[in-house]
Amino acid sequence: MSSNPTCPTDESARAIRTFTASARPVDLAFWLDRLETEKAGAEFAKLDRARQAEVFGCLPLDLQAELARRVPHQDLVRIVAGLNADDRVDLFNRLTPEAQVRLAQDLEPKAQADIRRLAGYAEESAGAIMTSDYAVLDADMTARAALDALRQQATGSETIYRSYVVDADHRLIGSVRLHALVLAAEETPLTEIMETEPVSVTSDTDQEIVGQMVARYDLLAIPVVDGGGRLVGIVTHDDATDVMEAEATEDFQKMSHVLPFKQTMRRAAIGTLYSRRIVWLALLVFGNLFSGAGIAYFEDMILAYVSLVFFLPLLIDSSGNAGAQSATLMVRALATGDVEMKDWRDLILREVAVAAALGATMAAVVFPLGAWRGGVDVAITVGLTMFVVVLIGSLVGMSLPFLLSRLRLDPATASGPLVTTISDAMGVLIYFSIATLVLSL
Amino acid sequence: MSSNPTCPTDESARAIRTFTASARPVDLAFWLDRLETEKAGAEFAKLDRARQAEVFGCLPLDLQAELARRVPHQDLVRIVAGLNADDRVDLFNRLTPEAQVRLAQDLEPKAQADIRRLAGYAEESAGAIMTSDYAVLDADMTARAALDALRQQATGSETIYRSYVVDADHRLIGSVRLHALVLAAEETPLTEIMETEPVSVTSDTDQEIVGQMVARYDLLAIPVVDGGGRLVGIVTHDDATDVMEAEATEDFQKMSHVLPFKQTMRRAAIGTLYSRRIVWLALLVFGNLFSGAGIAYFEDMILAYVSLVFFLPLLIDSSGNAGAQSATLMVRALATGDVEMKDWRDLILREVAVAAALGATMAAVVFPLGAWRGGVDVAITVGLTMFVVVLIGSLVGMSLPFLLSRLRLDPATASGPLVTTISDAMGVLIYFSIATLVLSL
Repeated sequence: MSSNPTCPTDESARAIRTFTASARPVDLAFWLDRLETEKAGAEFAKLDRARQAEVFGCLPLDLQAELARRVPHQDLVRIVAGLNADDRVDLFNRLTPEAQVRLAQDLEPKAQADIRRLAGYAEESAGAIMTSDYAVLDADMTARAALDALRQQATGSETIYRSYVVDADHRLIGSVRLHALVLAAEETPLTEIMETEPVSVTSDTDQEIVGQMVARYDLLAIPVVDGGGRLVGIVTHDDATDVMEAEATEDFQKMSHVLPFKQTMRRAAIGTLYSRRIVWLALLVFGNLFSGAGIAYFEDMILAYVSLVFFLPLLIDSSGNAGAQSATLMVRALATGDVEMKDWRDLILREVAVAAALGATMAAVVFPLGAWRGGVDVAITVGLTMFVVVLIGSLVGMSLPFLLSRLRLDPATASGPLVTTISDAMGVLIYFSIATLVLSL
Repeated sequence: MSSNPTCPTDESARAIRTFTASARPVDLAFWLDRLETEKAGAEFAKLDRARQAEVFGCLPLDLQAELARRVPHQDLVRIVAGLNADDRVDLFNRLTPEAQVRLAQDLEPKAQADIRRLAGYAEESAGAIMTSDYAVLDADMTARAALDALRQQATGSETIYRSYVVDADHRLIGSVRLHALVLAAEETPLTEIMETEPVSVTSDTDQEIVGQMVARYDLLAIPVVDGGGRLVGIVTHDDATDVMEAEATEDFQKMSHVLPFKQTMRRAAIGTLYSRRIVWLALLVFGNLFSGAGIAYFEDMILAYVSLVFFLPLLIDSSGNAGAQSATLMVRALATGDVEMKDWRDLILREVAVAAALGATMAAVVFPLGAWRGGVDVAITVGLTMFVVVLIGSLVGMSLPFLLSRLRLDPATASGPLVTTISDAMGVLIYFSIATLVLSL
């Protein structure tokens, strides 16, 4: 590991000064993020101008927005002017309308134009996450002219490793690797070096698709074009990685019955966590009323065979678990593009085999328990029920994501809760129905 | 979107030929992967040599291993020799020992040495996922000499965008961006251009940490050093992205009570899915016996107040759901590095507040239901129980990942099942204990 410190050696003012002077901007940003917001503001104010500019862009957006309210106006203008175009517009969108007006009037026209253009895109689209920091070349250049142009355009960023070739209308017609330019003979026409028909996305493409394509083609960056094929921005690989991580986190939240939220777990407010968690918790109560109604319907049987109740949680849990296994595996497979809608038929056939095997095994496990608690009749009831509810639970769990996708609903949102509710209700009905059959014979 | 086809227009031989001739290697590989293995082998054999070499490295490892068994030996040697070093060793590790010997003896000494070296690293470590395709420069070069050296070393890969500077012992002392080399005056010493103390990892670092660091520092690649600081390989950003996606998929599997498996959902065999799912399903049955025992203990009460049973699934489900929400959010936060072990105290205080609010709301929802079903006594019992089990379930769910981490166990593996089991057992005990108290007053 590098010897650059990633945090101060202790809490003393001297150790902190040493750290803030020598740490990498990313590490300094991480350390600031872990402080109380007031302390973070105080420490940020102590940094010199250059350092502030370096560090600010590395801070999480939440903290950027907080600091933006605390730093003097001229400092903010200077910092914001130095941000990457995509980071700048993200911060801008977080400010109050008054703060936006105050800030915009002091920015350079180019930065103002950037913000106007980038802020107009739908959230979580390619347009919303792209940056306008990229290198363009004309199709009629030579390799030498192209390298000269890149030297002119060169920023601190790594985006010149792939430059984009446009025609007179700024339509994307090719991309060039810096590597190829450096290796080519100086008078080679750019059109001979460039790769034609580069992979690209339109500005309204969903960010999850953008991330999948960057990963699929191992790209450093993916160009973004408008409806007319004109180049409007690029999404870099690191931003694509951040998108994929955020999308996965969102799916984890949805699968555990939490309405998605953007704040980090560390910073989320009590109110946010409450409101995002209570909705499904409460809705699931009503879902449970179905199983409760089923139990009420069979109350006489419960009085007659109280030992049946012993197995109730076990059966509906097993059904719910099997269904949750299927649902989660399928939601993830659909999200990563591993599985497509048309695969459903083959997958359901395989799931029948797997679920039948699981159900049979579970029935065999539970049969002796049933015999021990209530005799052979209870054993048969419980075993038969286990087989049926595990089989049906798995099939329902596997099919729900496809069904929700077909209905243009997000599979991750409802698969978890629906699987649980359906398993519970179905489990109760099947259990007591089978019990009625078996115990009446 | 680009007009390069990503799949044939129809199933005719002519459409397929057009597609295989014009598609990008990545897209051709995706299409082959979706075919039956035999058909994929047949179509692969029809491609010309250059195409085969291009496409093979883009195929998923499973399919590479399958094709390796089917293609003629000399073709395999040629293809394997052309792979990236890290892809080559991954495939090699999948072959049977006999196939490995056959293949190795026909490879170039350099490729053989690569395989020997890379194959020796522990699975899922930096050493196992790194490649030896990288550019090295000597510290005493000038910018011009460095560019010349890079032209010599230039491969088709993009890894020369960042080259690594080593001393006489091959110890990593700096890294250089191609960008900086191109812009610098020709006689500038490399030591003035290079960045010292670059971020790096050791070869035994876990792959998940490697991925986190590449994402954290927005790196194109991260150098890997051995115990003595000598450069032994690099992990590129695209491989890091693949690792993060695989790690997230693994966490999804674990959180839904599935033992992790590497095969894609589309290709996984019935036996694999069965064995990975049955273990927790069966273990959870035994966990459920605790709650069953609790129910058995209170059988007299159930006979006396049968309406209590109506609320049993609802209560233990709510407790389990609340616990699963907490556990999942915390496991994900720990996995992405958002939250650290030392945050536990602050987080538990916040969780108490959130869980109390959730529990109170849920109790208010369920109280009128209890009154409707069984009168005020049942309403009080059910409301009080709901508050307690949601509160405790949440706290347990939030704490388990920290506890498991502290015990050096993987938090994702057990958090899901343990939360469910604890919620069930605890829910039953608390419910009937409160009922005993309330209904006896």
